[in-house]
Amino acid sequence: MSKSICVAGGAGFLGSHLVGRLLNRPDVSKIVVVDNLWTGLVDNITQYNDPRIVFEHRDIETLPGAAMFDEVYHLASPASPPWYMADPARTISANVAGALRLLDLLKQGGRFCYTSSSEVYGDPKVTPQPESYLGSVDCTGPRAAYDEGKRCTEALLFNMKRTSGLDLRVVRPFNVYGPGTRPDDGRAVSNFISRALSCRPMTIHGSGLQTRSWGYVDDILDAFEQYFWLAGTDHPGPINIGNDEEISVLEVARYVSSLVPGSNLEFGDPVPQDPSNRRPDLSLARSILPNWKCGTNYLTGIVKTLDWFRLNTQTANVAFVDFQAGGRRAPSPQLAIATVP
Amino acid sequence: MSKSICVAGGAGFLGSHLVGRLLNRPDVSKIVVVDNLWTGLVDNITQYNDPRIVFEHRDIETLPGAAMFDEVYHLASPASPPWYMADPARTISANVAGALRLLDLLKQGGRFCYTSSSEVYGDPKVTPQPESYLGSVDCTGPRAAYDEGKRCTEALLFNMKRTSGLDLRVVRPFNVYGPGTRPDDGRAVSNFISRALSCRPMTIHGSGLQTRSWGYVDDILDAFEQYFWLAGTDHPGPINIGNDEEISVLEVARYVSSLVPGSNLEFGDPVPQDPSNRRPDLSLARSILPNWKCGTNYLTGIVKTLDWFRLNTQTANVAFVDFQAGGRRAPSPQLAIATVP
Repeated sequence: MSKSICVAGGAGFLGSHLVGRLLNRPDVSKIVVVDNLWTGLVDNITQYNDPRIVFEHRDIETLPGAAMFDEVYHLASPASPPWYMADPARTISANVAGALRLLDLLKQGGRFCYTSSSEVYGDPKVTPQPESYLGSVDCTGPRAAYDEGKRCTEALLFNMKRTSGLDLRVVRPFNVYGPGTRPDDGRAVSNFISRALSCRPMTIHGSGLQTRSWGYVDDILDAFEQYFWLAGTDHPGPINIGNDEEISVLEVARYVSSLVPGSNLEFGDPVPQDPSNRRPDLSLARSILPNWKCGTNYLTGIVKTLDWFRLNTQTANVAFVDFQAGGRRAPSPQLAIATVP
Repeated sequence: MSKSICVAGGAGFLGSHLVGRLLNRPDVSKIVVVDNLWTGLVDNITQYNDPRIVFEHRDIETLPGAAMFDEVYHLASPASPPWYMADPARTISANVAGALRLLDLLKQGGRFCYTSSSEVYGDPKVTPQPESYLGSVDCTGPRAAYDEGKRCTEALLFNMKRTSGLDLRVVRPFNVYGPGTRPDDGRAVSNFISRALSCRPMTIHGSGLQTRSWGYVDDILDAFEQYFWLAGTDHPGPINIGNDEEISVLEVARYVSSLVPGSNLEFGDPVPQDPSNRRPDLSLARSILPNWKCGTNYLTGIVKTLDWFRLNTQTANVAFVDFQAGGRRAPSPQLAIATVP
């Protein structure tokens, strides 16, 4: 059967990697990539040069039409704090109103796949975090547009499953990094690499002792692919997807510094409500996806990411996005990766 | 100055009481009541017979136009579990997409007032609940469309305050009851009264030992009125509004039974994820509203509510809405209060 597919946010970091995986499927005849290029990059899609891709440059909430897709993948959201903190309404609209629209575009019986986030756990009081952990999110706080946008979209989808039998798959990825990230993305790994390569200091916010579980993008996409297309289960998730090796932000910065001669670190103000720790309990993922593992440790993954940045981006003129108190500085929306010829 | 006001959900239980309070203000020249009459009742508005009211029968998300209101009151949402559990998409859309639309309709510098809910605390592990308590909500659970819809709307509004200086007031009311509730609303007090008056058994779900803090509607509206229109503070909330006397569901049922000769109780299955307790910490409310108190205890409030139901509703033919496992039974949407001539 020939499948018609929609990938919302398909020009973004995770979205464009997912499009690459979908193109390997012979049953896929059409992939409508919908992206407003707020944080996505058109090069992420044009690189594939595949006639099955149709690119729609618009907000997913405004995509016209009725039920037409066999599968819908909802990845439309900024994922980096300085970006989503700068535009909370657009962030919530992309996630929640985006999901409402996508539900209307899905054929009866079609599958809805959503990339939620480990941010639904907030600043967790339990470690590692199993999917059953209810989280510790301040719904009035500066990170809440993202965290609650994700939580609310999960609420919508799981209740559509309960009331309407929606065929649903929800993942909660943990701190993904790797090739394809914007140099001005603002999250730790890409930010450190971009700064180090352009001879600017890498800024550690707070003590740097806050931990994350860094998931290399290829490993994360392996899990998405296996789970989203898995037959023989109707488990809707949510499923934690990530690397359960917990590494501090400071350790990552020091490692990048060791790889880039002449780079250096500086310390800046803590980010408001920055989670102190984050680590997935992967029991459920291992049970549902016994052949999957997050095998790339951060030492290897950062080298691969650094190599990609060296080859594919110019960072000298990047207007670095960074946290500021209150998060009111808008990132430069026009920036695109400058590909080295 | 002559004020133009929008009350979304203004034909509902709390919304229509709020419209009554707004009509007492001489500076109010126009009140646009927007209500889709999903759970609201047009009689709740026509009772006022005031030419300043313009009624728009539609979803708030679809109200056309640009910034035109000096004050916006967002109360558009079902508030009773059997109703919101039956239609999660519409519930989330009313809250979140409704708020996004209302933000566009508010004049620059206008005030945005939102009725959130004590449900943002979920099944609380802390009692009483201060506003700083982050809550214990299962974002994948059967009540999540409401709970997370409220949390996400708070996230949107508090972050619009942070990024754009929105003039904001947010309340979290606790278990409000009183005259004006639909007989088929489904929440405990009105449900018990409706059933007792129509000689049907009052159903206690679970042990009945789960507690609530029952707030009589006039007391709650006193707080709304004082806080929403308070000068001399820019405290955006959230503020708990309720009665901090904690009473079990069983005690309420027994009290109603004692007031209606011949009525009786029965026990039914527990409601999924029914909170075990709920009690507001009112320290903040008392500090900001020193002249306010929730003075009506449940003994008095229930008698007043019962009297109103006896005078104003026929309950014999009410299609009672109640919980069912999975919550998939849709309430009868066409039901209206039948006013005794």
